[in-house]
Amino acid sequence: MAHAIIQTAEEILDKEFRCLDKGYVRLVDYMGGDESVVQAARVSYGKGTKTNYEDRILIRYLMRHQHTTPFEMVELKFHAKLPLFVARQWIRHRTANVNELSGRYSIMKDEFCVLDSKDVRYQSKINKQGESEDEVPLELGQEFISILIKGQGRSYEEYKYLLEKGIERGLARINLPLSLYTQWYWKIDLHNLLHFLKLRTDKSAQREIRVYAKAMAEITKKVVPLSYEAFEDYVLNSLTFSKLETKIISEIVNKGNLKNELEDIASLMPQKRGPL
Amino acid sequence: MAHAIIQTAEEILDKEFRCLDKGYVRLVDYMGGDESVVQAARVSYGKGTKTNYEDRILIRYLMRHQHTTPFEMVELKFHAKLPLFVARQWIRHRTANVNELSGRYSIMKDEFCVLDSKDVRYQSKINKQGESEDEVPLELGQEFISILIKGQGRSYEEYKYLLEKGIERGLARINLPLSLYTQWYWKIDLHNLLHFLKLRTDKSAQREIRVYAKAMAEITKKVVPLSYEAFEDYVLNSLTFSKLETKIISEIVNKGNLKNELEDIASLMPQKRGPL
Amino acid sequence: MAHAIIQTAEEILDKEFRCLDKGYVRLVDYMGGDESVVQAARVSYGKGTKTNYEDRILIRYLMRHQHTTPFEMVELKFHAKLPLFVARQWIRHRTANVNELSGRYSIMKDEFCVLDSKDVRYQSKINKQGESEDEVPLELGQEFISILIKGQGRSYEEYKYLLEKGIERGLARINLPLSLYTQWYWKIDLHNLLHFLKLRTDKSAQREIRVYAKAMAEITKKVVPLSYEAFEDYVLNSLTFSKLETKIISEIVNKGNLKNELEDIASLMPQKRGPL
Amino acid sequence: MAHAIIQTAEEILDKEFRCLDKGYVRLVDYMGGDESVVQAARVSYGKGTKTNYEDRILIRYLMRHQHTTPFEMVELKFHAKLPLFVARQWIRHRTANVNELSGRYSIMKDEFCVLDSKDVRYQSKINKQGESEDEVPLELGQEFISILIKGQGRSYEEYKYLLEKGIERGLARINLPLSLYTQWYWKIDLHNLLHFLKLRTDKSAQREIRVYAKAMAEITKKVVPLSYEAFEDYVLNSLTFSKLETKIISEIVNKGNLKNELEDIASLMPQKRGPL
Repeated sequence: MAHAIIQTAEEILDKEFRCLDKGYVRLVDYMGGDESVVQAARVSYGKGTKTNYEDRILIRYLMRHQHTTPFEMVELKFHAKLPLFVARQWIRHRTANVNELSGRYSIMKDEFCVLDSKDVRYQSKINKQGESEDEVPLELGQEFISILIKGQGRSYEEYKYLLEKGIERGLARINLPLSLYTQWYWKIDLHNLLHFLKLRTDKSAQREIRVYAKAMAEITKKVVPLSYEAFEDYVLNSLTFSKLETKIISEIVNKGNLKNELEDIASLMPQKRGPL
Repeated sequence: MAHAIIQTAEEILDKEFRCLDKGYVRLVDYMGGDESVVQAARVSYGKGTKTNYEDRILIRYLMRHQHTTPFEMVELKFHAKLPLFVARQWIRHRTANVNELSGRYSIMKDEFCVLDSKDVRYQSKINKQGESEDEVPLELGQEFISILIKGQGRSYEEYKYLLEKGIERGLARINLPLSLYTQWYWKIDLHNLLHFLKLRTDKSAQREIRVYAKAMAEITKKVVPLSYEAFEDYVLNSLTFSKLETKIISEIVNKGNLKNELEDIASLMPQKRGPL
Repeated sequence: MAHAIIQTAEEILDKEFRCLDKGYVRLVDYMGGDESVVQAARVSYGKGTKTNYEDRILIRYLMRHQHTTPFEMVELKFHAKLPLFVARQWIRHRTANVNELSGRYSIMKDEFCVLDSKDVRYQSKINKQGESEDEVPLELGQEFISILIKGQGRSYEEYKYLLEKGIERGLARINLPLSLYTQWYWKIDLHNLLHFLKLRTDKSAQREIRVYAKAMAEITKKVVPLSYEAFEDYVLNSLTFSKLETKIISEIVNKGNLKNELEDIASLMPQKRGPL
Repeated sequence: MAHAIIQTAEEILDKEFRCLDKGYVRLVDYMGGDESVVQAARVSYGKGTKTNYEDRILIRYLMRHQHTTPFEMVELKFHAKLPLFVARQWIRHRTANVNELSGRYSIMKDEFCVLDSKDVRYQSKINKQGESEDEVPLELGQEFISILIKGQGRSYEEYKYLLEKGIERGLARINLPLSLYTQWYWKIDLHNLLHFLKLRTDKSAQREIRVYAKAMAEITKKVVPLSYEAFEDYVLNSLTFSKLETKIISEIVNKGNLKNELEDIASLMPQKRGPL
């Protein structure tokens, strides 16, 4: 079983999962798997409990009850190529180890993120950080792309010119745009990775980083299928109700009748509402 | 308002909140308050949103949506006197700064934790890490206390004897029991403190560390009343339902009739169940 | 004495230390001071040692022997306005708490870093990440500035245009350059701050982040004058010699004659040499 | 080459390195090696520098200049059996992931640390946290051991008695002594491991934790021979001179004559002196 799992992860090792137009993320190394989570949990419980739980049940129990330390015993290392504006959001997760391409040591390549016109979207009018569901007309989409490409070309020309003049690399690059591609190695334990995936696969995350997070979710699923399943069931697809909401639900249940109490349970879901 | 809050925290500054028989925890310093959470959140949103939310609503919004970084902007420093077996659980929270009394530098005092006989309890038969609700007979309680005190006395006599003989302090203390009192300064940001309080005020935590966590919860409430209120409503007293549970609830709601579906909504509550 | 120190820090509280053309850094809050370092150290040593050391001597002892935890007991919170290319270097220090202005929530202002022409410099030919000491001719300096300003103007025009068209803020900004100003709150403990200052005041750091680090060093000096003095003496201005270098020094000393052994002790200094 | 290195580490995988009377430490898993350090460093420098440095030279350069992030790309996981008083020192290193045997879940075994009589030592009279070099008479050594063993026996008898009476495991154990053995999984990146090894192999560390640190140093050497060699040369066996000491050395060198200046260069070594 453990062997079969390892096979699965080995299949995708080093495989580039394409993201955006020129980016990718790939798993370059990993340590441990579902069996390491179980092993670590069992040292806490001692030998006595070994027979009580099968691996899957134990992992689900740990996830459900937020016993997070056993999930820290698995480590994954990724190599990613990504635009700077994505990197700036990503780096905010401080629990990872990072080595990034440096624009002070190296000459940056002429590689910039160009969106597909279908990915150009309007600002939501109700959600300050979100995208609107209204479709952007093809023409505007194409105009946006064209503005992007021209700006990137100009900046890169100027960058090259300044390098030719001998300007310090760290200075010559300061007018390069956030759509420039960089790359890094990024290493993290499973517990913190799942937290990253929760936040960055969420629809409140910017669509471009979501693309990477979803690719990494696919990779993680291969490395720790049981842990990932538990994560989906108890975290990703769970719903949390506040004290007030819990009270409302209790009243509903006690009366055994929902119709006159609430029009739509969906209105209780945290994501759909403003501050209560 | 901000002034009033500060007053409240100042009142309890340095005040010892007694814990167990000889221990305590006290707030020795703090930086910021609810207003710092708001200030930090607003730098993210820029000036434009300043008028939209009042402080309380903004804090509740942040807590509900797990926008945790603004809560990191408040810092609290505690001084605690606590038994080693509590310290060993407490220190597992790695995001704090700690300076502890060292048994290598200092001679440990003759101070050991002696429970009150009403706090002696049986092992739960169903919960491997929990206490039973059955009452321990007074006689057994007193016998336990008596065993404690005698063992502590003997160990301390031997410790003193070894010190007199000139044995290295770090060695002479290795047979001192986990009921020995130590003390430390412990400094942490509000976000991580709330996480500590969530785990250590929970009934799954050992009763002795819960005593400290509850005292610290009282202190925290004085320093950040609005944040603490939001924490109670959206974290401490919230309920999380798994994917499967959510599905069951949806079905119930769609049928508009609970009676034949579920006997008791309480059975949905995560805390009340084993692994699903 | 403690009072006098606090006075000193209070003087600069909220004062903007100007950095680059439009940036600044200011201390917005702090917790503790030299006396907190001493207090924390003394809990480790117990009461017995209290009379042996005066504060300054104790602080110097801690710094010299890398007893770092007492320095973690002081916390400082800064507010900074800084260009993105500086922010990207700064954020790599993961032990701090950060809240940054978000280009997804807010409309970025038309504020970009424009260097002074005297700060334009050549790439070093021998040091891959460094600046050359050769002076850049005024003309080239001015051409560089002019290229900067024009590029910034164009990008900002395009950004505004896209916002007017209703494009999502998170997308419209992706061609803004790294010279754009952002701002953040940044909170850190003294130990980790000193590590930041060591790395970022060093001449191997890019000149623009050095400007901020130096301003923060001035601020830190006001908050913890004794700790900062010890940091200067035992860390900033110390020299570390490798095993091989130590062996050479020992031989010199044993012979009591340096002349024929080494032309210049300066050649032993780590900073002046390539890999040994 | 990389293959050869892996072979070396594989040889010791899971091998118990005995520590103290009943303890051990073993490497249970690892990710990466010297080649991962190099790989991570090269992403920073870009492809251009690939030919300039061979691996060993690059690793030594990184270590010497405290470019620490590439060393974070290697991860090691240990399993250790260790007495509680060692565990309490060890756990202070917060950058590791830990899963420890729980005395709340499990019944602790009758296993306590009993020193060899040759390891019993006197308290140093000049160093508050250190051991004296004076030899402890065999008789006193044996008396100490005998006191240890008797105390451990008594505590364990009482522990068993309380468990039989049904007392909660978390309570019954509070008079067990710090010499009790526990065990844990402990996972850490190479950079932070080297920091741990520096502090805990040092003669200022208590002798019992030094035994573990030295075993782990042997293990680490097998996993990353080049990084460990660089660590020995540039960190473990390096000497750091303060500002004042550096000034003295400079003066000596300028005069070209040491004899009348300093009796012994050894007196300059930080470890040998009190606060300056």
